Amino acid sequence: MKNKASFFKVLANEQKTKARVGEIKTSHGKILTPAFVPVGSQATVKGLTPQDLKEINSQVFFANTYHLYLRPGAKIIEKLGGLHKFMGWFGPLMTDSGGFQVFSLGRGELVKIDYNGVTFYSHLDGSKYYFTPEKSIRIQQQLGADIIVAFDECVPYPTTHKYAEMAMKRTHRWALRSLEASQQSKASKKQQFLFGVIQGSVFKDLRQQSAEFISSQNFDGLAIGGVAVGEPRKEMISVLDWVMPILAKEKKLRPVHLLGLGEIEDIFLAVEKGIDMMDCVMPTRLGRMGWILTKNSKLKNKDFRYDVTKSKFAKDREAPDPGCGCYLCQNFSRAYLHHLFRAHELLAYRLATYHNLFFMEQLFAKIREAIKKGEFLKLKKQWLEK
Amino acid sequence: MKNKASFFKVLANEQKTKARVGEIKTSHGKILTPAFVPVGSQATVKGLTPQDLKEINSQVFFANTYHLYLRPGAKIIEKLGGLHKFMGWFGPLMTDSGGFQVFSLGRGELVKIDYNGVTFYSHLDGSKYYFTPEKSIRIQQQLGADIIVAFDECVPYPTTHKYAEMAMKRTHRWALRSLEASQQSKASKKQQFLFGVIQGSVFKDLRQQSAEFISSQNFDGLAIGGVAVGEPRKEMISVLDWVMPILAKEKKLRPVHLLGLGEIEDIFLAVEKGIDMMDCVMPTRLGRMGWILTKNSKLKNKDFRYDVTKSKFAKDREAPDPGCGCYLCQNFSRAYLHHLFRAHELLAYRLATYHNLFFMEQLFAKIREAIKKGEFLKLKKQWLEK
Repeated sequence: MKNKASFFKVLANEQKTKARVGEIKTSHGKILTPAFVPVGSQATVKGLTPQDLKEINSQVFFANTYHLYLRPGAKIIEKLGGLHKFMGWFGPLMTDSGGFQVFSLGRGELVKIDYNGVTFYSHLDGSKYYFTPEKSIRIQQQLGADIIVAFDECVPYPTTHKYAEMAMKRTHRWALRSLEASQQSKASKKQQFLFGVIQGSVFKDLRQQSAEFISSQNFDGLAIGGVAVGEPRKEMISVLDWVMPILAKEKKLRPVHLLGLGEIEDIFLAVEKGIDMMDCVMPTRLGRMGWILTKNSKLKNKDFRYDVTKSKFAKDREAPDPGCGCYLCQNFSRAYLHHLFRAHELLAYRLATYHNLFFMEQLFAKIREAIKKGEFLKLKKQWLEK
Repeated sequence: MKNKASFFKVLANEQKTKARVGEIKTSHGKILTPAFVPVGSQATVKGLTPQDLKEINSQVFFANTYHLYLRPGAKIIEKLGGLHKFMGWFGPLMTDSGGFQVFSLGRGELVKIDYNGVTFYSHLDGSKYYFTPEKSIRIQQQLGADIIVAFDECVPYPTTHKYAEMAMKRTHRWALRSLEASQQSKASKKQQFLFGVIQGSVFKDLRQQSAEFISSQNFDGLAIGGVAVGEPRKEMISVLDWVMPILAKEKKLRPVHLLGLGEIEDIFLAVEKGIDMMDCVMPTRLGRMGWILTKNSKLKNKDFRYDVTKSKFAKDREAPDPGCGCYLCQNFSRAYLHHLFRAHELLAYRLATYHNLFFMEQLFAKIREAIKKGEFLKLKKQWLEK
């Protein structure tokens, strides 16, 4: 691995908050932060081409180690030249550790955790697998993403302090093994950057302990995990209050990724506390269900979105999100999009996903601009004021 | 209606065959013939945007009167400015009469045909409807396509001579009523061209009688119908042998559309006999099932296509159709497309449809070029020789 020194730099710190604008440099291009990271689980952001993602100005996306390991298989992707070539996306890419899916999809109660790793059963055909930190790193090396993540244990919410502490300690051991595996492997000729994951459920002492431990290790970036297996969103903002001050004290400059959170309100709260990257299935998954992101107060009925499948939009000739410059909003009415959803047409899912990701990229561009101008709080107020 | 005199002109007649190159002029643009007409039943060619269709060089496509009447409703589309505006496609458009779907989708045995029209039940919710020639034309005027089709009875195959004759006579009466309705209606301010439909099942005397009758009427174009409700493809080529010589004797120059046929072999056989336009769900429907059109003899296992979902393509790094210039073939491998289909990813259906329609447009462009050069039979031999 090379050029690690210049992996991340901060371009602007906002004075009134911890919000910052940064730049991540990978061999497949740069990522301006704060950055939104869409999810493309099975080596595709559902319904969209790499060309679409370029139009949208998506900078990077997440592919899932668990999904790709099971289908089509990491070895096949490696033989075909790696994930970038496989999916025709030559910009920056991330893979997760597989941990989250192993614990959430891998046949629930049948998941068995031991000192070394996890036994789980494929959600596709029930066949049995065993993941270790070394295996997770090995698969992520075969996939060849630019940013990879240490193998961690995601505990469900709620859990006891006792269990959360045990899982956190295991995550720490696995973090060290992930780090070692990524440094030792002969396969790591590609420039890959490893992120360590901070766990500890919603317990202040554990989160602080985990932040101290993970940030003291030689990871290229830091991730705050454990959000997605059931923790309520409000709790996660508290987690940031405990963790971010510790990370701020570190001398080494590293990007901080918040795993699995991405509601509009969360974005502002997290960026304000210094978060650089966030991934979330919200814009893509909700888009496929007919939820259209908008800031328009006449349209949105909750969390900056409305349901275009509702009858009242059947004759509505307005653009889905007035003022939006995306292909959907420039060319089609709510009535047409409504019709596509009602008729279960493939184009519905594609167009709604396209708009929602475009919306997110526009928002993040505005956030970066506001931070540079020292106007982040003004922007936050514009968006979050009821 | 205006400018009808210049609706169709022939640019080149091939000497050795009846194949010809022509140009159809509508207020939404020109269609070079022979032309392929993709099917976009519910006001969308499944998975593709109007922008995609432009890239593919699609000249025109078919929307279904039956489907759009039931959902979202022709009145809604009319209020929203018509079908072109509704779907954001400003090139030429066709609608069918609704007849084929009424007879094939409208709850089978419950379809009741009388002198004036057809009673049928929606395949969506079972509610009862009544279509007449006047109603079909009225709906098609509300939709506002450039080319519309007279209401006809499609009989199943096989049928008796007696029934086929009765249905043909009804189709002729309905043809006259469609013609009258299209001329009288105040709504027909838009420039719409009406095609009459030749029926008669697979009986030579009936097909000849129908060709004589329909071509003696003042339609803007002629369509040969009845293929799609079960007639074997070979029989339809015989139908052309009976019908086309009669149409060739007509003084009025009109485009001839073959309804619902579009296998590669059929295209060559039909164009050779003078067919100007053909519509078919083959490239789109088969694409969504994983069938990729190709001329490559190492790949195709039947009818110029292969099934990319087969295991043998799981590690295949070649382009889906080598030498093809489409977005799919220029950017992705068979292995990736195979993976997308196996993972049931939306992008699979979109990319395969895109390629298949691109393939068809390339073929029709080659056919037009060959006719102009007097080399149609040479091209046919290149494609059909085993």
